[in-house]
Amino acid sequence: MSFLTLLRDRWAAADTLLCVGLDPDPDRLPASVRNQPASIAKFCVDIVDATAEFACAFKPQIAYFAAAGAEQQLEAVCEHIRNHHPTVPIILDAKRGDIGDTAKMYAREAFVRYGAHAVTVNPYMGGDTLAPYQEHEGRGIVVLCRTSNPGSGEFQSRLIDGEPLYRHVARRAADEWSRRGEVALVVGATHPAELAEVRGIVGDMALLVPGVGAQGGDPAEVVRNGADSTRAGLIVNSSRAILYADPTNHVGGAARVARDTRDALNAAR
Amino acid sequence: MSFLTLLRDRWAAADTLLCVGLDPDPDRLPASVRNQPASIAKFCVDIVDATAEFACAFKPQIAYFAAAGAEQQLEAVCEHIRNHHPTVPIILDAKRGDIGDTAKMYAREAFVRYGAHAVTVNPYMGGDTLAPYQEHEGRGIVVLCRTSNPGSGEFQSRLIDGEPLYRHVARRAADEWSRRGEVALVVGATHPAELAEVRGIVGDMALLVPGVGAQGGDPAEVVRNGADSTRAGLIVNSSRAILYADPTNHVGGAARVARDTRDALNAAR
Repeated sequence: MSFLTLLRDRWAAADTLLCVGLDPDPDRLPASVRNQPASIAKFCVDIVDATAEFACAFKPQIAYFAAAGAEQQLEAVCEHIRNHHPTVPIILDAKRGDIGDTAKMYAREAFVRYGAHAVTVNPYMGGDTLAPYQEHEGRGIVVLCRTSNPGSGEFQSRLIDGEPLYRHVARRAADEWSRRGEVALVVGATHPAELAEVRGIVGDMALLVPGVGAQGGDPAEVVRNGADSTRAGLIVNSSRAILYADPTNHVGGAARVARDTRDALNAAR
Repeated sequence: MSFLTLLRDRWAAADTLLCVGLDPDPDRLPASVRNQPASIAKFCVDIVDATAEFACAFKPQIAYFAAAGAEQQLEAVCEHIRNHHPTVPIILDAKRGDIGDTAKMYAREAFVRYGAHAVTVNPYMGGDTLAPYQEHEGRGIVVLCRTSNPGSGEFQSRLIDGEPLYRHVARRAADEWSRRGEVALVVGATHPAELAEVRGIVGDMALLVPGVGAQGGDPAEVVRNGADSTRAGLIVNSSRAILYADPTNHVGGAARVARDTRDALNAAR
């Protein structure tokens, strides 16, 4: 089943637009987990099981695993999600960007090694860098468009032919890159007006929206500005606000904040 | 010693502008290596030892190791270079691009885990994404500017205020991002005229130039258009043409092509 089909089924069946981001900072693991073997995977699996019913997707951030030399723990987390929550797609947040044979290797890393349903990709090098990912039929490619960081406008908002760069990326994604609906875009919740603009360009393409929770984006505004014609179309990510909600009870805290965030998103639909 | 000092010392002492790229494709390993344990590391160490005298830098491409689940082999290769060829800097080609805490993790991956002297970084998300790397004093940050792939112009050549995006990146790198000479740029050998333009903008900043060898860029043209005021300033990468020069004698083939490429570069200085 393709990433897009899995995602649409999940939006409908679980009635949620929330994506749970897995950013396991070794310095912030709860004391109850920290000294166990494979503590990073243990923490992530706890979070996954506590939040799956509220999630339309999980988004592991590979940097946290790579810094700790914990790739095998990331493999274990992805396997756990596929086995125990097979209706919830995995988006590997890797923001890879490279060409030809190298991009083939990154696609193999994401889709074969980790078994992710989709991967985030950086468009700076141009649309030909997406082709190696598209050889993996049914997998999703989530292209950075307008990111949530304060300096994201430095290039993304600069005008080309009277229109900011991020709108050119959105247009290319909708008109040229996406062959069978496999392309999605990243648009930060910290830029709500631009979320509406991008939605206007891309029709019902899926949008991954980071920046609610710890980064301060407003869930209701995201839904009002970003929902598609079916009042879905959004993968609204929250990571730290869920993972570190309650250091003394990370399972209960994560479930509570995930449920509340799902509800806040749904209230605006 | 900082990346830039190490690099300048190496340019002078070894009289070479050649960077040897380590892109170990498991499907192309020579038969004599393929069935050994840690065959990827063994192959890379063979190439490193055969080419070190001709190299101003080594550039391992992390995607090849990641696709094969061979991060520990990459650690071993980097350790071998640091121990046996301590005057040759390591540039980890990872093209990372992310923000805040996540970028901190990528910096930790490159500089602490692998002990690289520099890492390649994607500028699409803006200059604030470089700050976490700059916390590692003395390490180099090699920012993508004008890449060597056919589709690289799709965004990089689009005009902003009358000037292509890659020139804006070059200007920011020279005028704002580089605090103590820690920033370098990637400019492909397949765009020789633009290499000269970028050199005109950035003064004596180091330029990493992929695209000679298998991608067809001309070494002499690279030196004529890209050398700095000291007739150095270039890190001219060749990967596949060296690694796979002679499948029946990869050590001898790599040494021969590395020496010839160094000589072709020096002939134009």
